[in-house]
Amino acid sequence: MKIDVKKLEETFLPILLKEGFVPEAAVAMARIFSETTADGVFSHGINRFPRFINEVKMGIVKPGAVPQLVNSMQALEQWDGRQGPGILNALHCADRSMELASQFGIGCVGLRNTNHWMRGGTYGWRAAEEGFLFMAWTNTLPNMPPWGGDRAALGNNPFILAIPHRNGHIVLDMAMSQYAYGKLEWHQKCGTDLPEFGGYDRNGQLTKDPSEILETERILPTGLWKGSALSLVLDLAAAILSGGNTTKNIGEYPEETNLSQVFIAINIERHFGEEQLNSLINETLGFITNLNESAQHPGQRSLRNRKYHLENGVEIPDEIWKDIIQL
Amino acid sequence: MKIDVKKLEETFLPILLKEGFVPEAAVAMARIFSETTADGVFSHGINRFPRFINEVKMGIVKPGAVPQLVNSMQALEQWDGRQGPGILNALHCADRSMELASQFGIGCVGLRNTNHWMRGGTYGWRAAEEGFLFMAWTNTLPNMPPWGGDRAALGNNPFILAIPHRNGHIVLDMAMSQYAYGKLEWHQKCGTDLPEFGGYDRNGQLTKDPSEILETERILPTGLWKGSALSLVLDLAAAILSGGNTTKNIGEYPEETNLSQVFIAINIERHFGEEQLNSLINETLGFITNLNESAQHPGQRSLRNRKYHLENGVEIPDEIWKDIIQL
Repeated sequence: MKIDVKKLEETFLPILLKEGFVPEAAVAMARIFSETTADGVFSHGINRFPRFINEVKMGIVKPGAVPQLVNSMQALEQWDGRQGPGILNALHCADRSMELASQFGIGCVGLRNTNHWMRGGTYGWRAAEEGFLFMAWTNTLPNMPPWGGDRAALGNNPFILAIPHRNGHIVLDMAMSQYAYGKLEWHQKCGTDLPEFGGYDRNGQLTKDPSEILETERILPTGLWKGSALSLVLDLAAAILSGGNTTKNIGEYPEETNLSQVFIAINIERHFGEEQLNSLINETLGFITNLNESAQHPGQRSLRNRKYHLENGVEIPDEIWKDIIQL
Repeated sequence: MKIDVKKLEETFLPILLKEGFVPEAAVAMARIFSETTADGVFSHGINRFPRFINEVKMGIVKPGAVPQLVNSMQALEQWDGRQGPGILNALHCADRSMELASQFGIGCVGLRNTNHWMRGGTYGWRAAEEGFLFMAWTNTLPNMPPWGGDRAALGNNPFILAIPHRNGHIVLDMAMSQYAYGKLEWHQKCGTDLPEFGGYDRNGQLTKDPSEILETERILPTGLWKGSALSLVLDLAAAILSGGNTTKNIGEYPEETNLSQVFIAINIERHFGEEQLNSLINETLGFITNLNESAQHPGQRSLRNRKYHLENGVEIPDEIWKDIIQL
């Protein structure tokens, strides 16, 4: 079923209001769930919306909670998300990091006790749109074995790095596993193998078969030992900077909640005029694609999806749409 | 030949003095080249020393140059390395980022026109020793094709993230290629295959044969499309924050020089007492190794090498030692 992006937003809004979100909060979340869908990231957009509503109903996400400042040292702050909605907590802290960067050149906010931020790229796009160079990451529950191990002990801890660019922001949004669980499920549904090895089968061999990996739950760290190590340090850094939980601690709750996140914004206006920034980036992108025709930069596919879906609407599977309108 | 670590340092020092470094600079570099060797990173320690001296002789590295502040906005600074020695420029800017962090909670320094910093981990160990959470990265000349491409257009851009820990700091030091060129050369010398795919052979197939990869120069980005994308954003961020060269620009010089680097230090004392920090880290490391016996954390092997080599001396191949004492 083809649904207009505006219509998506209008559909999400009353459902959120019914769950007890104040209008301003509901409007912001409805917009972000539909933008994420328009960008083609269904797994953290429309496909995730029913689960998010369920988490509100279960009391995992507290609709009335607003983040609270708990610690501050000039350009460095700690906030407590008080189990509020992950999107709003993350938006608040991303914005706060930009305010600090406007004042101090760079700003860093640690956020604890928050919930899933959905698509991490959301905060990267927002900061790039405001002209900031921006980094952020989150930890998760244990969902990935370390390299060489077979039991989940690390999170896949998505990491975001965004750079403003007039012709389309450069937004890296990468989890520490080679494939997201959502991607495995999608390939399973389509009956296709993964293009590359994504984890281990029942015999402990690397496989491209999504069903085998979903069964063993042994997803492969991206870059093997490298993604494994990067996941560990991002987790520790998030817990330290927020004063919150590590991946280990999160695994002790019955559901994934009380996550730790970090937001770092850097004011680059002072260093570069917009013209100079754009020509520097264009030069590098041109250099890469001249040598390697098919090369794409991070963010490019999202932009293409966004443009297409805003013009043509989004094709939503009937069963998903049915789930949504029944909420 | 077994050489005492102290003897290494005493051997490097007069050679550096002869090349025109002032005593303070020569002492610092002699110490770091020997520490890097003691940590087992020969490729950026003793093995690299003759090449470094040659770069001084060729005028690529200017022994008298000291870094200069070119731009400043509270916690954010830009320095020009003026083609001085990479180790000293990087030490200076790492220290400067810590000073800024002491004042503002977080500090960020961009460094342009510098030379190879040798082992990136050096600056991570130093900052962790001072109690700072620390990130740094550098760009390089184009030495890696983007994912899906066959011509080098990205750098392998090492990224460092260090976390202080009483029982041994956690220091991630990862390049964006799955294997370093130095590692390929080492396997070639030993006549062994790589443990995992490291690049492409002459027929465009993934291979573990180091000689084939050294011939095609098609090393594999770590995490395939992910390391490729991360390399790109780190390069752009380094050039933007330093006001310096991108990987593309660096490729236009006859030799690798005029690199761009970023140093970010965060003051975590305020958030955590040392006890709390240590127990948080111990808990996570214990959790991972309880579930996965063989798991190691970043920095662990360096520490083990350091301890062993300080007690027993370092086994240096005769031909390398001969090269050194002839300098």
